[in-house]
Amino acid sequence: MLGFIRSDIANLSAYQPHPGGVSGKPAEIESLPLDRLDTNESPFDLPDELKEKLAWSYKEQIEANRYPDGSYAALKTAIAQYVTESANLLAAIAPEQISVGNGSDELMRSLLIATCLGGAGSVLVANPTFSMYAILAQTLGIPVVTVERSPQADFQINLEQAQAAIAQTQTPPIRVVFVVHPNSPTANALTPAELDWLRSLPEHILVVIDEAYFEFSQTSTVGELAQHPNWVITRTFSKAFRLAAHRLGYCVAHPEAIAVLEKIRLPYNLPTFSQSAALLALTHRQQLLASIPQLISERDKLLTTLAQHPALQVWPSAANFIYLRLQTADGEALTQIHQKLKAQGTLGRQIAGGLRITIGSTDENARTLNRLEAILAEHFPSASGV
Amino acid sequence: MLGFIRSDIANLSAYQPHPGGVSGKPAEIESLPLDRLDTNESPFDLPDELKEKLAWSYKEQIEANRYPDGSYAALKTAIAQYVTESANLLAAIAPEQISVGNGSDELMRSLLIATCLGGAGSVLVANPTFSMYAILAQTLGIPVVTVERSPQADFQINLEQAQAAIAQTQTPPIRVVFVVHPNSPTANALTPAELDWLRSLPEHILVVIDEAYFEFSQTSTVGELAQHPNWVITRTFSKAFRLAAHRLGYCVAHPEAIAVLEKIRLPYNLPTFSQSAALLALTHRQQLLASIPQLISERDKLLTTLAQHPALQVWPSAANFIYLRLQTADGEALTQIHQKLKAQGTLGRQIAGGLRITIGSTDENARTLNRLEAILAEHFPSASGV
Repeated sequence: MLGFIRSDIANLSAYQPHPGGVSGKPAEIESLPLDRLDTNESPFDLPDELKEKLAWSYKEQIEANRYPDGSYAALKTAIAQYVTESANLLAAIAPEQISVGNGSDELMRSLLIATCLGGAGSVLVANPTFSMYAILAQTLGIPVVTVERSPQADFQINLEQAQAAIAQTQTPPIRVVFVVHPNSPTANALTPAELDWLRSLPEHILVVIDEAYFEFSQTSTVGELAQHPNWVITRTFSKAFRLAAHRLGYCVAHPEAIAVLEKIRLPYNLPTFSQSAALLALTHRQQLLASIPQLISERDKLLTTLAQHPALQVWPSAANFIYLRLQTADGEALTQIHQKLKAQGTLGRQIAGGLRITIGSTDENARTLNRLEAILAEHFPSASGV
Repeated sequence: MLGFIRSDIANLSAYQPHPGGVSGKPAEIESLPLDRLDTNESPFDLPDELKEKLAWSYKEQIEANRYPDGSYAALKTAIAQYVTESANLLAAIAPEQISVGNGSDELMRSLLIATCLGGAGSVLVANPTFSMYAILAQTLGIPVVTVERSPQADFQINLEQAQAAIAQTQTPPIRVVFVVHPNSPTANALTPAELDWLRSLPEHILVVIDEAYFEFSQTSTVGELAQHPNWVITRTFSKAFRLAAHRLGYCVAHPEAIAVLEKIRLPYNLPTFSQSAALLALTHRQQLLASIPQLISERDKLLTTLAQHPALQVWPSAANFIYLRLQTADGEALTQIHQKLKAQGTLGRQIAGGLRITIGSTDENARTLNRLEAILAEHFPSASGV
């Protein structure tokens, strides 16, 4: 090991963006379309006319040789307006309450840098949840305290455990609590009890509420920001807004917290073209978000069908993905099912003893359902199919 | 102050991307072209046919709704080939020796995270130099030790001071040395004595050699990497390759150091379109880099002229910018000159008691020279003009 590397870095494992990848797909079906239902993207590209507009703006308006405008003034104004409007807020969110990131994971990292570095704090997460929070913390040498969720209660956080963890963790104390609303991979929105608990946390604990899937859940905590200066709400353009390729996240918070994030962020963290894409997407948000009801309807149809399968356990979803487990809780069988799905062309994500499947296009969902039913029939011949 | 923010963050000041900005330009000349000679960009946009190709690839080949390919395999291969070829290396650089960043500043931050966090190390810089190293370190709570450069010796690092700083700094010891080759703002390449000193540093000290201006200096340390596993060389597409808007940096290092950087970087840190732009720029590198001799010739002409001005002190440059000071070392006069230049339409950068001016197009340089001479004639009527 190189002598200049921190000793605790060696044992870390990197986040695996596509653990499935496309290997393992037999050559005979290589020409089939691959149903990429493993990263909770929208199945829909931007409409042609918007891509045409962006391509034109690149040619005619963007100077490739010039650094981006690092103030992001226009983008922050547009985001603030969207946040206000989409949550029907009476008091408008101001641009000074917005910071932007190269993906919301950059904002998560900046929040950790601002709060916990150098032994200033630990982080609390409730598993299973989005793995990046813990990975980001670990790369920064920040201790991660984990508590559980209850599958019996739709994966609500075990709040007694969480409260006890905050009371007992002292070296260093918990400074940040991460929640996803709705949670990934389990698709549940924050419950009233969880919200009450978050409201009860003292102001020296930062509460990060990741609303990456807000456009699918249509439930947001942003209306309570004014009462909670220790809350930071993160969002992304990578899901409902169809801009995963462009890498754009934002957060909404108290202006003082934003001022700190602005100090920490790299001065030109957003490429000019990414800014253009986000602005255009916000301008055309009605058009882009019109696909949401269809995806929700597809999701509910899929859930209804799978809920009837005797081999499966499924949960309600407030997001653009579903989470299921085997009634037998047989990990090896789950791995085989996951791999067979992949071999037939559906990429899913195996996490925490379950399978997370993104809602795709109607065709993708139909193919995936057929594949899953056939694979389950092989594994559980005695269980009647749907 | 919010209770969850680290106490040492409050006193930090953010990096100011464009301290000049465009304010201060009188309304009567608002329509004049602004000569943006303050951030060492190339004055030339990509040629139209390349922008056309990129715009086409965005429309036809990029799915906006899909996350980037986070392996960056094609880009790393192309970069490795360019690094090898451009330094005439006998032993080829491998793709496993390359990591890529959202600008090279992201790589600098990752290197600091990998080495110095949590009291594991301090950082050494020789001022004046690129201010981002110290800013990045400070946001991470990492101590910065500074030594001087000698204006009398073309801003060579005071190596005795540097060596003493390494010997004496213990809490924590110096773990990273940052140098720029050639240095910004002073434009001098590493001297043989500096290189010997870097070679002499023990392997538990990381040496970061920022070769952002390599294409202008045509002198690189990359040929010595094999002998020095503790050296990391960073480069950028923002200068000679004309891609500042796209935010792309890379580094060349020992595969083990790269493996650590890959653990720390955000999984999708480069937008898909930025990857396309970098690949295209490398494919067309002969065309893009053909502008370098012209810029160097412009630079040398400007330096020759300014060197004859009795009010100025100028230094040789191995980069795409020049650095000058007033013979009188009158800071207030320098500020006035800087602001008058701005008011007339030339943005420069006032740093460390001097003025750094990027080499622009022939017209920009001519206008800037005329403005500077006229302003100097006002300030120093007794000094004869050029």
